[in-house]
Amino acid sequence: MPSPLRIVSFGLGPIGLAAARLVLQKSSLQLVGAIDADPGKAGRDLAELLDREAPTGLVVEADGTGALPRLRPDVVLHCTSSFLPAVREQLLAAIQAGADIVSSAEELLAPELQHPLLAAELDEAARKAGVSLLGTGVNPGFAMDFVAVVASAVTADVRAVKCTRVVDAATRRLPLQKKVGAGLTKAEFQQQLAGGAFGHIGMRESVALVARGLGLPVDRIEQTVEPVLAAEDHKTPFLFVKEGQVAGLRNHGLGFVGKQLVVHLDLSMYVGAPDPRDEIQLDASPPLHLKFLGGIPGDEATAAILVNSVHGLAAAPPGLRSVLDVIPPRLCR
Amino acid sequence: MPSPLRIVSFGLGPIGLAAARLVLQKSSLQLVGAIDADPGKAGRDLAELLDREAPTGLVVEADGTGALPRLRPDVVLHCTSSFLPAVREQLLAAIQAGADIVSSAEELLAPELQHPLLAAELDEAARKAGVSLLGTGVNPGFAMDFVAVVASAVTADVRAVKCTRVVDAATRRLPLQKKVGAGLTKAEFQQQLAGGAFGHIGMRESVALVARGLGLPVDRIEQTVEPVLAAEDHKTPFLFVKEGQVAGLRNHGLGFVGKQLVVHLDLSMYVGAPDPRDEIQLDASPPLHLKFLGGIPGDEATAAILVNSVHGLAAAPPGLRSVLDVIPPRLCR
Repeated sequence: MPSPLRIVSFGLGPIGLAAARLVLQKSSLQLVGAIDADPGKAGRDLAELLDREAPTGLVVEADGTGALPRLRPDVVLHCTSSFLPAVREQLLAAIQAGADIVSSAEELLAPELQHPLLAAELDEAARKAGVSLLGTGVNPGFAMDFVAVVASAVTADVRAVKCTRVVDAATRRLPLQKKVGAGLTKAEFQQQLAGGAFGHIGMRESVALVARGLGLPVDRIEQTVEPVLAAEDHKTPFLFVKEGQVAGLRNHGLGFVGKQLVVHLDLSMYVGAPDPRDEIQLDASPPLHLKFLGGIPGDEATAAILVNSVHGLAAAPPGLRSVLDVIPPRLCR
Repeated sequence: MPSPLRIVSFGLGPIGLAAARLVLQKSSLQLVGAIDADPGKAGRDLAELLDREAPTGLVVEADGTGALPRLRPDVVLHCTSSFLPAVREQLLAAIQAGADIVSSAEELLAPELQHPLLAAELDEAARKAGVSLLGTGVNPGFAMDFVAVVASAVTADVRAVKCTRVVDAATRRLPLQKKVGAGLTKAEFQQQLAGGAFGHIGMRESVALVARGLGLPVDRIEQTVEPVLAAEDHKTPFLFVKEGQVAGLRNHGLGFVGKQLVVHLDLSMYVGAPDPRDEIQLDASPPLHLKFLGGIPGDEATAAILVNSVHGLAAAPPGLRSVLDVIPPRLCR
């Protein structure tokens, strides 16, 4: 049996912590470090953040750039931010330390879309250092993009694709409930939306990945985001949504060839959303209609796919990779 | 744009012909030859076998070993037989000619299961020649194995898997209707079954692939095959099944860890089968339930996945590959 891969968890929010917890359960992986700049976390044994009694012996480090060369990870599990410019230095530090990177940063799914120069810089740095990096997750990264592309494998032609994801936000973590606007007024929702770091991140990247994966010559990507108002009162483990308040959002991602809509991603995430599911319809030869009944549970599944992508990425050639050009992720033991 | 890959179609039964027809439609592929030992096919322009008016200029060659070095394909699409010993020389000839091979031979999905020595021989020959080979298809290769493994990517643990495939054989090609025994008496079915080359081929290989992909320590693989009798008369485009005659078959593939069933593949293929579908249930954390509504249509889809696997295999390192260790197949344009 090969020796376990040395893993560092960089970013210890809910997803990062869940991923770290998983790594501790995998015999093919060894957690050798944890990094988070939050002064409430740095300096503590990771066990405290995981609500584990027995100490892990891993003290959370505040300074990634300083810690990484010393920790010598094979792979960094990176879960700090959605936005590529915000994580550029973190990623470069991991690359310089000779580590592959699996990141939950949504913009890294298709980084050339919004940040072509930064994507080229990361690709070149990774090739020079002989490492590879990958952005993935459940959404973006799997439910509304990767699965549709994999399904196309059994088709002779694809003319258009529609993916529908319905998430009952009541079942998700507090940051996600906040991110979809649960409990806001309609005016507050619009205000926050205008601010940027709000709502589902990565929709355009999903459209771009689907278009590339299916060879659809999409020349325009758009998205719309609108609030969904609660038809009745809802109580989640974390917050209360009154009738008429925002329960969450509806987000459409649209990819056009000329005037024709060929990629339509339809995401509903709100407290109380009925019939949660992931559904993919390929207007194809033969046509395909695929459904995850009950949907893919977001938080647990997101931590899982990050960890489950580690071995595939470690086997990939150096450079900036996408989920379409590494071997498919699968349960890591 | 890179120049198209040079393809030779080796084996021109219904699947091989459908794959050749597809290759002719793909701008990233160029069909440069066709091989079939059948004297009714050899010597004719491929167009005649494809019911195309315009000649392709490709004359079907009877002798693969002689033709391949001259045709210099990048990739051979191999669709001659299900059984590895029967295709050993064909595969070695393609390897010697420097071609990658995508094959529909069911036993090549997990060749180490029934033919470990032959698998090692092919792997060594391919590495020496700097080429790679892959067995794939819809079943085995996708519906009851690969998709289940890919779905595991969003889970933290998998305890067991159940895949259910229901195919209405009335919608399939004549060789498949014959292969499942449609129109036979029960006694004839049992007789043919004892003969070997009958029924669905590759069930054990699917179980083995799932077990490997999910890291389940399966120590025993079994299968059962039983006839399904027609409850009423059925007419297909090709044959007639009377009430009480065999309509097709039910085939269970079973993978055990000790006495515990952890992989259960349940395949029904018979004329008139109700609710055709592909369904995957992972007893996992979180649990997953996935369904292709109406199922994945076998024949068209099988030709498609062979062609759609070409580019991924061409990018893979030399040797004997499995669908789990090449980049995922996707629509080829």
